[in-house]
Amino acid sequence: MSYSTLANHFEQLHHLQHLGAICGWDQATMMPPGGNEARANALGTLAELCHRQLQDERLADWFAAAEEESLNPGQQASLAEMRRAWRDATLLPADLVRARSLAGSRCEHAWRSLRPANDWAGFLPLFEEVVALSREAAAARADALGLSRYDSLLELYEPGMRGATLDPLFAQLRGWLLPLIDEVREKQRGEPVLPPAGPFPIAGQKALGLDVMNLLGFDFNHGRLDVSVHPFCGGVSEDVRLTTRYDEQDVAQALMGIIHETGHARYEQGLPAAWRALPVGQARSMGVHESQSLFFEMQLARHPAFLARLSPLLERHFGSQPAFAPDNLARLYTRVEPGRIRVDADEVTYPAHVMLRYDIERDLMEGRLEPRHLPERWDQLMQDYLGLDTRGDYRNGCLQDIHWTDGSFGYFPSYTLGALYAAQLEEALGRQLGPLDDLIGQDPGAIFDWLDQHIWRHGSLLDTAELLRRASGQALDPEPFRRHLRQRYLG
Amino acid sequence: MSYSTLANHFEQLHHLQHLGAICGWDQATMMPPGGNEARANALGTLAELCHRQLQDERLADWFAAAEEESLNPGQQASLAEMRRAWRDATLLPADLVRARSLAGSRCEHAWRSLRPANDWAGFLPLFEEVVALSREAAAARADALGLSRYDSLLELYEPGMRGATLDPLFAQLRGWLLPLIDEVREKQRGEPVLPPAGPFPIAGQKALGLDVMNLLGFDFNHGRLDVSVHPFCGGVSEDVRLTTRYDEQDVAQALMGIIHETGHARYEQGLPAAWRALPVGQARSMGVHESQSLFFEMQLARHPAFLARLSPLLERHFGSQPAFAPDNLARLYTRVEPGRIRVDADEVTYPAHVMLRYDIERDLMEGRLEPRHLPERWDQLMQDYLGLDTRGDYRNGCLQDIHWTDGSFGYFPSYTLGALYAAQLEEALGRQLGPLDDLIGQDPGAIFDWLDQHIWRHGSLLDTAELLRRASGQALDPEPFRRHLRQRYLG
Repeated sequence: MSYSTLANHFEQLHHLQHLGAICGWDQATMMPPGGNEARANALGTLAELCHRQLQDERLADWFAAAEEESLNPGQQASLAEMRRAWRDATLLPADLVRARSLAGSRCEHAWRSLRPANDWAGFLPLFEEVVALSREAAAARADALGLSRYDSLLELYEPGMRGATLDPLFAQLRGWLLPLIDEVREKQRGEPVLPPAGPFPIAGQKALGLDVMNLLGFDFNHGRLDVSVHPFCGGVSEDVRLTTRYDEQDVAQALMGIIHETGHARYEQGLPAAWRALPVGQARSMGVHESQSLFFEMQLARHPAFLARLSPLLERHFGSQPAFAPDNLARLYTRVEPGRIRVDADEVTYPAHVMLRYDIERDLMEGRLEPRHLPERWDQLMQDYLGLDTRGDYRNGCLQDIHWTDGSFGYFPSYTLGALYAAQLEEALGRQLGPLDDLIGQDPGAIFDWLDQHIWRHGSLLDTAELLRRASGQALDPEPFRRHLRQRYLG
Repeated sequence: MSYSTLANHFEQLHHLQHLGAICGWDQATMMPPGGNEARANALGTLAELCHRQLQDERLADWFAAAEEESLNPGQQASLAEMRRAWRDATLLPADLVRARSLAGSRCEHAWRSLRPANDWAGFLPLFEEVVALSREAAAARADALGLSRYDSLLELYEPGMRGATLDPLFAQLRGWLLPLIDEVREKQRGEPVLPPAGPFPIAGQKALGLDVMNLLGFDFNHGRLDVSVHPFCGGVSEDVRLTTRYDEQDVAQALMGIIHETGHARYEQGLPAAWRALPVGQARSMGVHESQSLFFEMQLARHPAFLARLSPLLERHFGSQPAFAPDNLARLYTRVEPGRIRVDADEVTYPAHVMLRYDIERDLMEGRLEPRHLPERWDQLMQDYLGLDTRGDYRNGCLQDIHWTDGSFGYFPSYTLGALYAAQLEEALGRQLGPLDDLIGQDPGAIFDWLDQHIWRHGSLLDTAELLRRASGQALDPEPFRRHLRQRYLG
């Protein structure tokens, strides 16, 4: 009885979040500029309502009573996820939540103009406030959860993951990744790569994007593709709203973005229907989410067999040109080059960007690094990891990401965890279904069915470690990722 | 203090309604079919929340305390409109509200297939339940408000309007309208009218629609144009979402629909910004709303001076053809012909459709007509008013409208009240600014400024009678409408 009362309560919350997701999507894609102030007010009221729903004082009693009830395993997992949502919403004092949200908004807003101005000095005082309040929040969470400060934040994005796991994992990864980057670059030196010649009219890019989404099994009865300045995968799992942006001179940016977001989208569309309105029916973690988008973008879309299928689609929409030859596409989309910007990084150098940020944000939160020393650390790590001199270039250095400006410390590891999970899934799938080449060429649906069966339909019914173990047959391990990279880039 | 507490409470309600309006628009324009069930659930939860906001038990005390406060006239009007919204939401017992909503949904849903099947017998039992529950609601409202049953429903759509006003008004209108229809048809007999030859590609129709919206001063910083099966004007006043539907063979349907909805939209966009989130900042009534859409569609868009401006726009988008000559457009868009379908009716016969429905719905609610006798009454009035034999054709007869299926009795008079208001405004505007011909040709902005100054910016700060008296210099009177019709159709 209490369980069903709880379920009903959280379903109502989900309905409110549905309205917020659609109106947020609308704000980014459809809304005329003059509508923004009213929208912000409406969404602000909604956020308060959602918060109030999670602060309901009856919840404590309902949880206590539900623990006594006889529940099946699904309901038990559901109860645990409701409890997690409740805990995360009620753990911090309201004053701190408000102060942090305010400082984050202020810092993020200023960042939008300070970054292009390369103004670290202007950013620092605002960022110091964000760090101070985030440390305070981390300390409160750490106390309540019995975790270290940084782990207590990591728990928000990748439940169950700990610094004690990440430290050796990333050390191992670093150990072979940095030499591998050099090796790949050496091999690629002098390799002929033909860049496709534009322009690529937007109507054609959109039609190509829709073709590729169809090839990847996106369900257009439960979602759509639109345009926004910052691409995202939003909406709700019954109605996934995917966005991209088009550049007439560059066909790859929108295309690879669409493929990446389609990975997120299929995970959302595949979440367990029976649990859809409850926390347990949501995606397991940010890392698992990223594993799906990366699987689509890296394992699938940059695979020679996929590029062989992409080539005629490119020709259909933009006419024939030598750059569209499958071999050239394969060289083009696996080009490795260290750069300053994370979001522009290739598959091989990307983890270096993430490990650099992990080092810094962990030490910021644990009090081992002060914000004013961030640039030196950044420059040092960039030199160590990618051999780049970034001194003085804050814009393309430590000011490049939005995450820290609003205090989202603990998020960055998800990107590389996603890459590791994806590589483990690739190996397991290959063992069970045969080579990816054949599947992509002849039966891509089998790949998606496998992902559905092993990841999507489980929502949050299992914890991440268990989900990964059952899907891949092993615990978290960077070796499959190493094999994936060696095979693709040195094979 | 209590006033501001109330204002804050109603602002929150407005924010929720904002989310509902945008998600409702999305449902009709953007949502893939598979998203509907989840959306319906989310909107259902929102409707409950809005209802709960209006049922808040603290409201009675706040209203009582606010009455004692020293308020300026705007705040007093605002308080009265909040009170009206509260009263309408709390007046009926919850059981009755629920039963009525259920019966209405059931009847409306069945109607969607019964109408095309011409199945009056299948419709009748469902409709009888809707009528019975609507009578019950009307009786409860009538008791509480000291009004007749029908007036208590009319009050929902056209506050202040009474049957005692409508009866003689419509009798007077009927007295000259029916002969006028004959006179116009006699005059138009044999008049050459050239129908435009299609197809009219949808991209061109949309571009034409945007041109015309620009000409009519629609503010695209606070609104947009999209497509839906049933055109409407939705969204919120800061972000008005107007829709249309396109038929490749018929350029007038979408165009005139867009112009009509643009009238609604400009009223919404012009509502007083200072009161936007409160009931007093909303449109005054359904009749006043319709007066603005009809002013745009009839007074402006079918005016020869407007059609002279439209003609080159048509040519720009679809090439030249004789039917686009201004004289031909004027004859085409003022063609009078009695027909069975209200929504297809011309400006002259339209009020006959409305008066017929008024007679019927008033007698249904006052208990002077039983649902089973509706078709005979319908056929009789159709014969009397428009000389049409509609016996047995329920589909294009008493089953044609959606309004009664969900119990929206009392709405129909708004259409013709809107036409009368519009004609009064036209005369007043002409007296103050000079002939409409010149204004349309040279300075249409002056027309919109006048409407803004006299109608839009007043929101619900004045009651309808006072708004009309101040704007037009006179009380409600059908004579200006008669002069408008005689001048346009017999002049």
